[in-house]
Amino acid sequence: MRIVITGGAGFLGTRLARAILARGALTDAGGNARRIREVVLLDIVPARDVGDARVRAAAGDLADPALVEHTLASNTDTVFHLAAVVSGQAEAEFDVGMRVNLDATRVLLERCRRLERPPKFIFASSLAVFGGALSDPVTDDAPLTPQSSYGTQKAIGELLVYDMTRKGFIDGRSLRLPTVTVRPGKPNRAASSFASGIIREPLAAVDAVCPVARETRMWVTSPGSVIANLVTGHEAPASAFGATRSVNVPGLSVSVGEMVAALRRVAGDAVADRVKWHYDPAIDRIVSSWPARFATKLGQALGMLGDADFDSIVRAYIDEEMPRAQQSAGGGAGGARAGA
Amino acid sequence: MRIVITGGAGFLGTRLARAILARGALTDAGGNARRIREVVLLDIVPARDVGDARVRAAAGDLADPALVEHTLASNTDTVFHLAAVVSGQAEAEFDVGMRVNLDATRVLLERCRRLERPPKFIFASSLAVFGGALSDPVTDDAPLTPQSSYGTQKAIGELLVYDMTRKGFIDGRSLRLPTVTVRPGKPNRAASSFASGIIREPLAAVDAVCPVARETRMWVTSPGSVIANLVTGHEAPASAFGATRSVNVPGLSVSVGEMVAALRRVAGDAVADRVKWHYDPAIDRIVSSWPARFATKLGQALGMLGDADFDSIVRAYIDEEMPRAQQSAGGGAGGARAGA
Repeated sequence: MRIVITGGAGFLGTRLARAILARGALTDAGGNARRIREVVLLDIVPARDVGDARVRAAAGDLADPALVEHTLASNTDTVFHLAAVVSGQAEAEFDVGMRVNLDATRVLLERCRRLERPPKFIFASSLAVFGGALSDPVTDDAPLTPQSSYGTQKAIGELLVYDMTRKGFIDGRSLRLPTVTVRPGKPNRAASSFASGIIREPLAAVDAVCPVARETRMWVTSPGSVIANLVTGHEAPASAFGATRSVNVPGLSVSVGEMVAALRRVAGDAVADRVKWHYDPAIDRIVSSWPARFATKLGQALGMLGDADFDSIVRAYIDEEMPRAQQSAGGGAGGARAGA
Repeated sequence: MRIVITGGAGFLGTRLARAILARGALTDAGGNARRIREVVLLDIVPARDVGDARVRAAAGDLADPALVEHTLASNTDTVFHLAAVVSGQAEAEFDVGMRVNLDATRVLLERCRRLERPPKFIFASSLAVFGGALSDPVTDDAPLTPQSSYGTQKAIGELLVYDMTRKGFIDGRSLRLPTVTVRPGKPNRAASSFASGIIREPLAAVDAVCPVARETRMWVTSPGSVIANLVTGHEAPASAFGATRSVNVPGLSVSVGEMVAALRRVAGDAVADRVKWHYDPAIDRIVSSWPARFATKLGQALGMLGDADFDSIVRAYIDEEMPRAQQSAGGGAGGARAGA
């Protein structure tokens, strides 16, 4: 198997590569289990070395057909398309969002049509394809009613993935990911960035601002669960999908207040009190347009799993990421663990 | 008002121009009634002279940004975007469909953003945005589930029109047109082309092939009704729309057998017997994926009207188009009228 991961220099891309390499084999579009021979991490910046000879980094503009043609060699078996301009930036910079979230997706799909064999194409879609008045919970076949440019671009991607699958150009699967938390590193321009920040910053002894109300509910997933579900979505037989190729990925419905309460239980009052509440209407407008409860019938049938509770999401972050956070934040993690 | 009609050299574009010119004024995006000063008929081929000094033809590739920038002068008030590669061709020639139905729509929308004032943008969408298992009747807010590349491209257009309206770039309205029948002229590559051919050809004393079963139901409109509804959709105040800018345009639900029965009532046995039944699975697959009954709550609230029955659609064709058909077909119309 030759696999390309876009957004491969990012947190999820790197974790996905590690998970695939550890697994050793994946199922190709023909239904055959095959050994992983090469994983290409494609991103606008070069990916860091993950210490495995099967991995290669490629850097450049994803909307550039020449780069994509060169990087998606003709024997590519699978593309995981994770790269995106996040929601807040896509709303503020419309053209940048259209270029990366729509044009680059199109360039990738067009290249996939020209490969030796139709590849699997795993598209990281988003709960942001939904918005406005919706059924509760939101089903796999609920109308696509995005209320942001990011959600619009992801919805268009889903339509293209389905049509190109129907035409036999690719074996596509669009996975609507919940908000991923806790992400390590720095805040980004996702409207949902605070959902990681209000856990990560306090654990590093830094104050964090929460821009939405305590009652705001979100549909979230841990990085570990979402990586497992991306692989499950890849491995599922094409016959397991129904009338479309889009699937709600399992997550956890939790209010922001409950997230901070979980942080308090796991890491103590001193840590949780570092969350400051400063309402930001621009962020709240986007986040509150996203539904917070989903029916994940198809995802569960494919074998996808959600997280048990938010406490375990906080603990997973501490276990998996805090040693690194400690190095950069200078001991905040130790304090956090002591407070737990 | 300065108005641009894409597909302006076509049958509907020309009729729309005549209707607008006869009306004399339209309401701009600011809500003000304004006199029609210029109507530009933009198409891949030059439009024929319609005999009105306010009309100008412009010809070229709609996906060419330079042409579109030049043709959509900065004081353009309204764009009626009717140009499209029809369903059968978009399915057979994927790249041609994507270029015209998606890329050209995008180029037009991008140009509209740069105008002096956000213009009205009336997008001719289609019932083909729906397909597969659907509610019956199909409501305005039913999920977009296209089962053809044409329907996919129209659904993407609706999403872009809505998002750009939400952003304040345009005042967009996506009108999901029923199948228009009876179209004069020659067959085209729309999967639904036969819905005009089985009326038009027999009336011109020519045999016509019907490629779908008598029981196949379709959602149809006369040219006169759809032109009136395009104008009504333009004139409706922005506040009349709900959570999206998409609206099911009223039509008539009729089986193909009923269409031929209406032809028999209006034009006689000799004419109706010229319809020959030769099943074509490629056409039937596309046509039968389209729903045939719609709830048109929003359209009716906006003041849109459907046709009373198919007999009146046949009679309207004879009244409006047969003099011209007679000239080219050499007397078939006379026979048809005699048979009625």
